Amino acid sequence: MLASLRFNGAQAAAELAAQVSLSRSKIGQELGRLQELGFVERAGKAASQGGRRSGLVQLSRRLRFVGVDIGATSLDVGVTDGLLELVAHTSEPIDIKDGPDAILGRAVEVIDKLRAEGHLPALNGVGVGVPGPVSFRDGFTVSPPIMPGWDRYPVREHFTQQLDCPVQLDNDVNLMALGEMYCGLARSVPDFLFVKIGTGIGCGIVTGNRVLRGSNGSAGDIGHIAVHDTGPVCGCGRTGCLEAWFSGASLSRDATALARGGESPGLHELLGDRDALTAHDVGIAMRHGDPQALGLVRDGGRRLGRVLAGLVNFANPAMIVVGGGVAGLGHPLLAEVRSELYRRSTPLATSTLPIALSELGEHAGVVGAAALISDQVFGAGPTP
Amino acid sequence: MLASLRFNGAQAAAELAAQVSLSRSKIGQELGRLQELGFVERAGKAASQGGRRSGLVQLSRRLRFVGVDIGATSLDVGVTDGLLELVAHTSEPIDIKDGPDAILGRAVEVIDKLRAEGHLPALNGVGVGVPGPVSFRDGFTVSPPIMPGWDRYPVREHFTQQLDCPVQLDNDVNLMALGEMYCGLARSVPDFLFVKIGTGIGCGIVTGNRVLRGSNGSAGDIGHIAVHDTGPVCGCGRTGCLEAWFSGASLSRDATALARGGESPGLHELLGDRDALTAHDVGIAMRHGDPQALGLVRDGGRRLGRVLAGLVNFANPAMIVVGGGVAGLGHPLLAEVRSELYRRSTPLATSTLPIALSELGEHAGVVGAAALISDQVFGAGPTP
Repeated sequence: MLASLRFNGAQAAAELAAQVSLSRSKIGQELGRLQELGFVERAGKAASQGGRRSGLVQLSRRLRFVGVDIGATSLDVGVTDGLLELVAHTSEPIDIKDGPDAILGRAVEVIDKLRAEGHLPALNGVGVGVPGPVSFRDGFTVSPPIMPGWDRYPVREHFTQQLDCPVQLDNDVNLMALGEMYCGLARSVPDFLFVKIGTGIGCGIVTGNRVLRGSNGSAGDIGHIAVHDTGPVCGCGRTGCLEAWFSGASLSRDATALARGGESPGLHELLGDRDALTAHDVGIAMRHGDPQALGLVRDGGRRLGRVLAGLVNFANPAMIVVGGGVAGLGHPLLAEVRSELYRRSTPLATSTLPIALSELGEHAGVVGAAALISDQVFGAGPTP
Repeated sequence: MLASLRFNGAQAAAELAAQVSLSRSKIGQELGRLQELGFVERAGKAASQGGRRSGLVQLSRRLRFVGVDIGATSLDVGVTDGLLELVAHTSEPIDIKDGPDAILGRAVEVIDKLRAEGHLPALNGVGVGVPGPVSFRDGFTVSPPIMPGWDRYPVREHFTQQLDCPVQLDNDVNLMALGEMYCGLARSVPDFLFVKIGTGIGCGIVTGNRVLRGSNGSAGDIGHIAVHDTGPVCGCGRTGCLEAWFSGASLSRDATALARGGESPGLHELLGDRDALTAHDVGIAMRHGDPQALGLVRDGGRRLGRVLAGLVNFANPAMIVVGGGVAGLGHPLLAEVRSELYRRSTPLATSTLPIALSELGEHAGVVGAAALISDQVFGAGPTP
């Protein structure tokens, strides 16, 4: 019922009753209960249809969900209302390697600050995303390669104890997919892939409107698919992995090397006396026509496209959404991905396959995290 | 209720009522209706538990489902009872290129023959598998690359008209996966991949006990994933596809070339004055210690393993089942697949991942086809 109000907005009690197959008397009881809990409120009268005008109900405007998106190098916290509209958002740099005590402590501080600023008249639930595999049932991370100190740390419990509200934990890319499914490009698409290109590369898989997490929560771990027999050594210890060839981290590494080696005057100038260039710098240089920067992006797009071509043959999605910080490289990257994908996948799988940039952009993670916990609190929705 | 009887065997009406949440009076009505339809029958009394001994019901022993497994070069027809136990099975060579009229006509003849032999006291439904993409909803094949003349041919309607019973059509590999899920190795595994190595290579994907068919029915089409930039020209017109490098057809091609070129005395002798060697011949030569034959199998296993490694990172299945005719190559093939898979996938995804040969073997397709239509007739089960 709450999910129906989220999806359809304010409705008459009679309409709602029909939708959830409750009798007239039962719906009154149930709405009374939800009103007491602070989940719904009255919203004036419906337009008359000849008879007595019936009262409308809607989700309470005081409902608030918090999405916490913990990345390798950033902490984003967003507040949404019951309709998953973002009402506040903060972002700050972190280093995931500082460990769970420091990072989770900071996340709670940010939430407290948002509360002090009046953004949280209520706190109905918190969704949390982390950049590694998660045991969804247990609410902790499992062997996260880039998160030393986080293995099996009880993240969900930490928030539950500190904030005294329902909490759910998931992998950050799954949450970005969920955000795009509820509020972004993929609203009407039951089967799609969300590809996040950030420090590493990951993929959220949605089939039949459900996030596919796999047998132990590591589904979508495409950054470690081998694209060559050899290549730069990856963070996972092997060679040839996609993200060792192309990701925010590898762009930074390769661009910095080109700048230092003098191959690219443009990148050299951008580097100045800094330690390293970023993927963002590569984008700037590329837009200024630097051929080396463009080459890095094209090579990366081709490798990503090659991996996606295999996954498209395998999963036959109806759409691919590309997000994460490096997605800001935009058109030249997507053009290369598309070209490789259309060349290497079967025509049946690609003939109507759009490949598009995330609509929610940097907000996808926090909105998806709010959607996750909102589904649990509302006892409905396609996930988990 | 019928699915429960299939899964649990004979049960007392009271037990059944509790399982499907029906009142005592409603269950009597419903069982009466199912008995009239010929779906259930009485099966003696339950052991006394102090009170009145209640009557047991079970699936009618006269229930029969037919599974038709149309391959590129073979037509298999199986008959199962209501419990999906195989009670009859026939297999004969065909050429899928003869087109739908010839092949489907022959399938109906075979079913008529099985009926004449007394194997079909009833015909409660027919499941049909074809070696190409299928529009599951429409009951026809879609752009099947190796099936000229079959595009959008109304296969389901053909059988419905000829046999006057419920019919469902699916891709053959999806059906093999379904067979293994109901009656084989994967009985207790909600997420697994079924890899068929026959003339070509395909994959059935089961997630959460459901077959994943993708947005237009082509999910699992892994034979056309590129393993190299170049390679033998594939039936699809591109180069580098997995099945152009390794499949029943490519083993036949490569072994025949080795035999003719004189590189392998063993293969040369096996060839004799035949036109070509088969994958089966390669197995024979390999077991006789022919190093060239073993080399073909190892190279193929390595390429298959490389593709599967990517899919394991992506989908994180709990098991991989390998079937199809070429699976008969057995241990040397699986050893190479495993080695490549464990080397290239993330440890989290492979630490508890069994890779096993199909338990149902050549029966997987017909049993899966029977399971598909049985689920529809019983109005239950995890598929579709």
